[in-house]
Amino acid sequence: MTTRKPPKGQKQTFLSGPRKSANPRPKRGRREGGKPVIDNWLYGDHAVMAALANPKRVINRLVLTKSKFEHLSDSELILVKAYQDAEVIQPDQLHDLLPENAIHQGIAILPQSLPGLHLEDLLQIIGEDEKANVAVLDQVTDPHNVGAILRSAAAFGISALIVPDRHTPPISGVLARSASGAVEQVPVIRVSNLSRALEKLTEFGFWRIGLDGTANQELEEAVVNSGRLALVLGSEGKGLRRLTAENCDLLAKLPISEKMESLNVSNAAAIAFYELSRRNRT
Amino acid sequence: MTTRKPPKGQKQTFLSGPRKSANPRPKRGRREGGKPVIDNWLYGDHAVMAALANPKRVINRLVLTKSKFEHLSDSELILVKAYQDAEVIQPDQLHDLLPENAIHQGIAILPQSLPGLHLEDLLQIIGEDEKANVAVLDQVTDPHNVGAILRSAAAFGISALIVPDRHTPPISGVLARSASGAVEQVPVIRVSNLSRALEKLTEFGFWRIGLDGTANQELEEAVVNSGRLALVLGSEGKGLRRLTAENCDLLAKLPISEKMESLNVSNAAAIAFYELSRRNRT
Repeated sequence: MTTRKPPKGQKQTFLSGPRKSANPRPKRGRREGGKPVIDNWLYGDHAVMAALANPKRVINRLVLTKSKFEHLSDSELILVKAYQDAEVIQPDQLHDLLPENAIHQGIAILPQSLPGLHLEDLLQIIGEDEKANVAVLDQVTDPHNVGAILRSAAAFGISALIVPDRHTPPISGVLARSASGAVEQVPVIRVSNLSRALEKLTEFGFWRIGLDGTANQELEEAVVNSGRLALVLGSEGKGLRRLTAENCDLLAKLPISEKMESLNVSNAAAIAFYELSRRNRT
Repeated sequence: MTTRKPPKGQKQTFLSGPRKSANPRPKRGRREGGKPVIDNWLYGDHAVMAALANPKRVINRLVLTKSKFEHLSDSELILVKAYQDAEVIQPDQLHDLLPENAIHQGIAILPQSLPGLHLEDLLQIIGEDEKANVAVLDQVTDPHNVGAILRSAAAFGISALIVPDRHTPPISGVLARSASGAVEQVPVIRVSNLSRALEKLTEFGFWRIGLDGTANQELEEAVVNSGRLALVLGSEGKGLRRLTAENCDLLAKLPISEKMESLNVSNAAAIAFYELSRRNRT
């Protein structure tokens, strides 16, 4: 298990105790050269442990409370000790570092963002997999939803998430906690132009299915005998935008009761990922 | 479309303008004779319109902003006018009535709770349906999750939700908004003893399947050729409790990757409800 050390100038001794923070509130994700720079704190057991276990993650700080340190499981202790520069701090110091109401479970990290990805990187991610599934989120804006979608994507073997950079939340503490570690597992590709990305997916051999409650065909039928699939999901309130729908090869729906207009987008995504993963097993 | 009028002493004229509220903050659900009394404000388009359309709902107040009133759809306007005593108030007055950060979309109601239900009422709810599905939530505590589960339950024809009274959040504004109107559609039966309720479900002819990631069998196989099914879901953090699992006839899992420990509980519920509804179609 390798965990990258913080860059020079950030060294502290393991269990060196409280340290005054120069960054008491997390900043929003900034952009540099079109790529998100994430300097949000991530927190909570799953999100932190998955980041510590991810060799691609550079972590600037790791803080935890004494009580947390004493209750780490064996595997968690290995990850925390491998970092070497963990700081044990007081609960109120941790509280001050994190956003109000952050459910931190006594542990948090200040990571650097994962390396930015371009759509072309997708070819390397999927390799020769002729049954690869990816998901495209068109303006899903609630970080809880994006996080839950990442978690389900990891659970059902979705190779990558493709999102419009401007209308998708950064990888924040809330998002990462909802993702329960999946932020480290499912590559998120942020694109500046979603329509162009959808065109590119065709070139990469993907059949693009838009999830739309008004479609005639059900998803279960739509996915039979297909090769690479890109599942396109619309926003929480308005569903698929017209232009996005036009850039799909097919629209399909989930078989829900007429009494309900729609499902929560992360629930719809979970069902769709489940359906996509089934076709790869039979 | 019938909407019950508020009880006497609450009369106001339609569009009578601002009124000083005696109840600036929502109270938590109280208990009277073991039944929840809901005096929380509900808010947001779907939650409010579904409540107005529900003949079983008694609504004490309906408030909306001028801007909202002017932008109601035709069908929404019919529901609002049918109530007769709607109050148009200023946005900051609405803000003061509701919890901080409530996503109210300019409209809110102060309803009375729906009639309390006992487990025996389930027999009337399902009637002669030998393929009825119900869901049992064992200590799901996040109102967003309970709300999303209700929404999916309505979407996939789940007949009722059975929950332990003490460990389940009341029908709050957050829960109802996540449920997107499904609070009015899916009966929620609050029981004091879940183990006894699970025994009773057997008497009612239900086969009880607990969703558990450590199970050997997959849900898809477990539901084939069954009659009435009760799907039992554990809490967000800890899953099914031992005693609850022992009260199930069978444990089943969803086929997720070993990389992820579990799914978000509302996402797991959505997939399970989808799977349950499929068996009723084939």
